[in-house]
Amino acid sequence: MRKPTLKDVAEAAGVHSATASRALNPDTRAAVNAETARRVLKAAESLGYRANPIARSLKTARTRTVGLLIPDLTNPLFPPIVRGADDVLSERGYTALIASTDNDPERERRLVDSLVSRQVEGLIVATARLDHPLLEQLHAEGIKIVLINRRSESLDVPSVVPDDASGVTQAVEHLVQLGHTRIAHLAGPHTTSTGVARSRAFRHAVRDAGVADDAELIVECEYWQEDSGAAALGTLLDRGADFTAVVAGNDLIALGCYDVFAERGISCPDEISVIGYNDIPLMDKLRPPMTTIHIPQFDLGAEAARMLLGCIDEPSRRPGSVLLPVTLVVRGSTAAPALTSGSRAGSR
Amino acid sequence: MRKPTLKDVAEAAGVHSATASRALNPDTRAAVNAETARRVLKAAESLGYRANPIARSLKTARTRTVGLLIPDLTNPLFPPIVRGADDVLSERGYTALIASTDNDPERERRLVDSLVSRQVEGLIVATARLDHPLLEQLHAEGIKIVLINRRSESLDVPSVVPDDASGVTQAVEHLVQLGHTRIAHLAGPHTTSTGVARSRAFRHAVRDAGVADDAELIVECEYWQEDSGAAALGTLLDRGADFTAVVAGNDLIALGCYDVFAERGISCPDEISVIGYNDIPLMDKLRPPMTTIHIPQFDLGAEAARMLLGCIDEPSRRPGSVLLPVTLVVRGSTAAPALTSGSRAGSR
Repeated sequence: MRKPTLKDVAEAAGVHSATASRALNPDTRAAVNAETARRVLKAAESLGYRANPIARSLKTARTRTVGLLIPDLTNPLFPPIVRGADDVLSERGYTALIASTDNDPERERRLVDSLVSRQVEGLIVATARLDHPLLEQLHAEGIKIVLINRRSESLDVPSVVPDDASGVTQAVEHLVQLGHTRIAHLAGPHTTSTGVARSRAFRHAVRDAGVADDAELIVECEYWQEDSGAAALGTLLDRGADFTAVVAGNDLIALGCYDVFAERGISCPDEISVIGYNDIPLMDKLRPPMTTIHIPQFDLGAEAARMLLGCIDEPSRRPGSVLLPVTLVVRGSTAAPALTSGSRAGSR
Repeated sequence: MRKPTLKDVAEAAGVHSATASRALNPDTRAAVNAETARRVLKAAESLGYRANPIARSLKTARTRTVGLLIPDLTNPLFPPIVRGADDVLSERGYTALIASTDNDPERERRLVDSLVSRQVEGLIVATARLDHPLLEQLHAEGIKIVLINRRSESLDVPSVVPDDASGVTQAVEHLVQLGHTRIAHLAGPHTTSTGVARSRAFRHAVRDAGVADDAELIVECEYWQEDSGAAALGTLLDRGADFTAVVAGNDLIALGCYDVFAERGISCPDEISVIGYNDIPLMDKLRPPMTTIHIPQFDLGAEAARMLLGCIDEPSRRPGSVLLPVTLVVRGSTAAPALTSGSRAGSR
């Protein structure tokens, strides 16, 4: 099969080659009549035409590609974030190459090598750990980075994160209003800013609300995953800890609690209430529907993409960090504590 | 910050540079003592060392990168598939760059341009449509392609797909055994092989089971998405169609049915049973837990990655297509039809 040329596309669309070229280039498309542009794109699609991006990037010295580093694509939090970033990048004629590190530093190093050697114009990074030498190195080399969801210490790059202090405070206040006085926290890993920030906010919130501020009621999970959440709740229960509600570090940790409830025949919310964090897809359809903190997932991605494009367009610009508002969504996994709750956990 | 060199890594790990180099290269790592390799990788990570993959690929003429084309990353089917592929590729020292096309042919064309111009060694493609000129073009250009989940007509490349005929037959037989005689099918888009194959299998299965084979009971959904599923079920109900069970093209279409049930106060499974397809994460935790066809998501990805690596290693090899077995998982969304069911839908 002969490779179709720009001329073939122009002929099929019944336009001049220069017009076809302008229509195919996202930077110049606006200069072409919208109906004509549509016709050219359709002709290109049906012929299987592909522009030569190496030739184009040699001319413009720009690859129009951005890398997205995700810690774990099977966490349903990330696909909507990626979608938000992707949509903004795509509108601007950029393509996003996504890389999932599986929380493995060596895999991350290889993926970054692969992206950077392919001249991505910048990185949107959701894998940040508080101590993250690879990111520091990339930043020192002048690679444009925007952090998303998590921050890193000692790394002066822009970030877009949910307002975790507000989210955790809303969760604790909701439980206190329901009458809970002994609330446990299943914290995310303290190697991540979200784990530390949500834990700190939890301590502040229980103290401010005048309910139990008991270090015994806080357990750190190894990963932001269901099985880590199940293990952490199991630890608390086996220890005979006295609590009637759980603030989970994220929805997956809260889902791990659902697993333990099912295994041990604990009724949620009658015996233990639980609140998640993030409001990932399907939380409204669970049994019971999960009370959680909604974070604007799509906007996190879109805002990070806008920020990165801003840094690419004006390299001297140093945007600050953006904190996006979060909201409590009350569903069925929280209720007033049972009257005999004080001795419940201890009696197990 | 000075960029760390191979020598720095070797010194930090207390080994010779040649050893460090072997340990850092996945192809030669096995030649190094495992404990030494771990020390070198740890030193590389803590120094933020990155190999120069362009130099390496100039030497070997291989980029060790593979592209994964996904139609919609927010469909929870795909992250586990990506994970399966990623794990196999990673073990072999490959990195996977993931691209989500959002079912948009123009975006797909740009993403493919971006991947191919960055010399990926092959593509794993989950976006195939039955008529797909871009894929035909890529194949004609000699780019190695393995199709996953879906096939394309007139494209002679290997594929890894679930055994859809078996899956749909199991679904129909389960409903017939429960006593259903009028079963509807909310089909996936007929632009995809999965949409066509599952629809065809449905017609065969109802005929073979001797229950209603009524074209009125089949509605094609525009996308493999919840809102398309909700719209299709709404159409059937508004039309007064007579049915007591639904075989949905995939889990998201079945989730769209859940939405309609909630809106219209229809009880599932008491009034209408529904079966999904794929067994995406969390289907076991829904209200009601969803009966669905489980497909081996991780294995689909892993098998496709193995196939692609096989084609890369032995360019003359032409592996056939692989059909992976699927299993019915009975949960709470299917039950025997109510006695008065014959007139139920019509009376709405």
